[in-house]
Amino acid sequence: MGINASHVPETCYHHCNQTFESSRQCFKWCQELARKDEYKIYGYPYSTNTRRVLAVLHEKGLSYDPITVNLIAGDQKKPSFLAINPFGQVPVFLDGGLKLTESRAISEYIATVHKSRGTQLLNYKSYKTMGTQRMWMAIESFEFDPLTSTLTWEQSIKPMYGLKTDYKVVNETEAKLEKVLDIYEERLKNSSFLASNSFTMADLYHLPNIQYLMDTHTKRMFVNRPSVRRWVAEITARPAWKRACDVKAWYHKKKN
Amino acid sequence: MGINASHVPETCYHHCNQTFESSRQCFKWCQELARKDEYKIYGYPYSTNTRRVLAVLHEKGLSYDPITVNLIAGDQKKPSFLAINPFGQVPVFLDGGLKLTESRAISEYIATVHKSRGTQLLNYKSYKTMGTQRMWMAIESFEFDPLTSTLTWEQSIKPMYGLKTDYKVVNETEAKLEKVLDIYEERLKNSSFLASNSFTMADLYHLPNIQYLMDTHTKRMFVNRPSVRRWVAEITARPAWKRACDVKAWYHKKKN
Repeated sequence: MGINASHVPETCYHHCNQTFESSRQCFKWCQELARKDEYKIYGYPYSTNTRRVLAVLHEKGLSYDPITVNLIAGDQKKPSFLAINPFGQVPVFLDGGLKLTESRAISEYIATVHKSRGTQLLNYKSYKTMGTQRMWMAIESFEFDPLTSTLTWEQSIKPMYGLKTDYKVVNETEAKLEKVLDIYEERLKNSSFLASNSFTMADLYHLPNIQYLMDTHTKRMFVNRPSVRRWVAEITARPAWKRACDVKAWYHKKKN
Repeated sequence: MGINASHVPETCYHHCNQTFESSRQCFKWCQELARKDEYKIYGYPYSTNTRRVLAVLHEKGLSYDPITVNLIAGDQKKPSFLAINPFGQVPVFLDGGLKLTESRAISEYIATVHKSRGTQLLNYKSYKTMGTQRMWMAIESFEFDPLTSTLTWEQSIKPMYGLKTDYKVVNETEAKLEKVLDIYEERLKNSSFLASNSFTMADLYHLPNIQYLMDTHTKRMFVNRPSVRRWVAEITARPAWKRACDVKAWYHKKKN
């Protein structure tokens, strides 16, 4: 991993928060103080945003205590949960006294704290690779997610609530997604994954909606494009992702 | 600035990309090789997303060559521009051979490359401050921006295109924004800025839509909340932001 060597480091902020004297001393502190297994996550095992964070935890080989917020029962809008997250959304992530919301912010937090562990999700070998990865993470957030979240909601989530799918919305949204997936196809012809030739957070961010859409008619749009199809097959087959989608495992974990 | 001292750095990736031997040697390389004034930005001076990146450049005291993409004339959908950005959007940022899209990714790229220069926009003193800042950056992207972009589009941008504002959409969106701004008010009662007690990227990201909404009826929602009003007054008064909104300055800059 590179470093911006024009700054003289003063304090370690990996875990130990000590004044930097030697990497060996700091390593000792960090490893001893690392609270790897104290994470708590308020979530729902069917929620796309919860699964995004679970995927990161599994890619890093980290354990966590799940606390179920039943979205179907509307638990997320009850005063007891609004006191935890006033936006009324899951997941909420607790690391000791630190409380974080927003699945992508939580994901980056975990991947940065545990940079050296498990899959290298933030693969910043140079400023160029960092910029390119940030761009593909933003493309997911602003071009891909708004469309695929709508398609997942209409076709997969609404039926869970006993609501009817609006096919006019599905058709209009799919027309927009066609153009986005054409750009993805071009990119994935020339790159194994979106940001680089290795799996990164940019790919991971896409998984939750893609997984639901593989069980809908929208699946055809992904499999009709050979490079997108190859990419989808590869990222959905990751063991960490399969564990993130294991609903039984969520409920069988010890709860606090 | 802290450092993760459990990793031994191998290569500087500030600018010089050299194997790290001493910070002094690296500093020399970095400063000599820094290409501070070679940035090109395809954009439109009225565009919210263009202004977000310009604000970062001005906060960092960096110069750039503007290339106008006239959104009102539809230049962003012409084949010549789609060859540059297939999403048909501005801004597009060029740093030598690196091309980046998505305003927030570009902003983070600039703020990371020029970490030591100008305003400290990514103020990561500890993992906790990093996580908190990432969370507020994500809240902007996923809770604030979808609503305020709709309100800006309906009330400020549509009239530029000769289109009529849909007040049903405005009213529905404002009702959702009320709840978000209540959460902001609570936060800003206890913190000078969103992520911490100093101005960061989390605040900057909000500026482009807020600036347009200050000229609409939606302004009342910001000024009716004392802490939000104080925050809006402070961030919109920043000299870098005023320069980012200076349309004449955009057109008077030397173009390549």
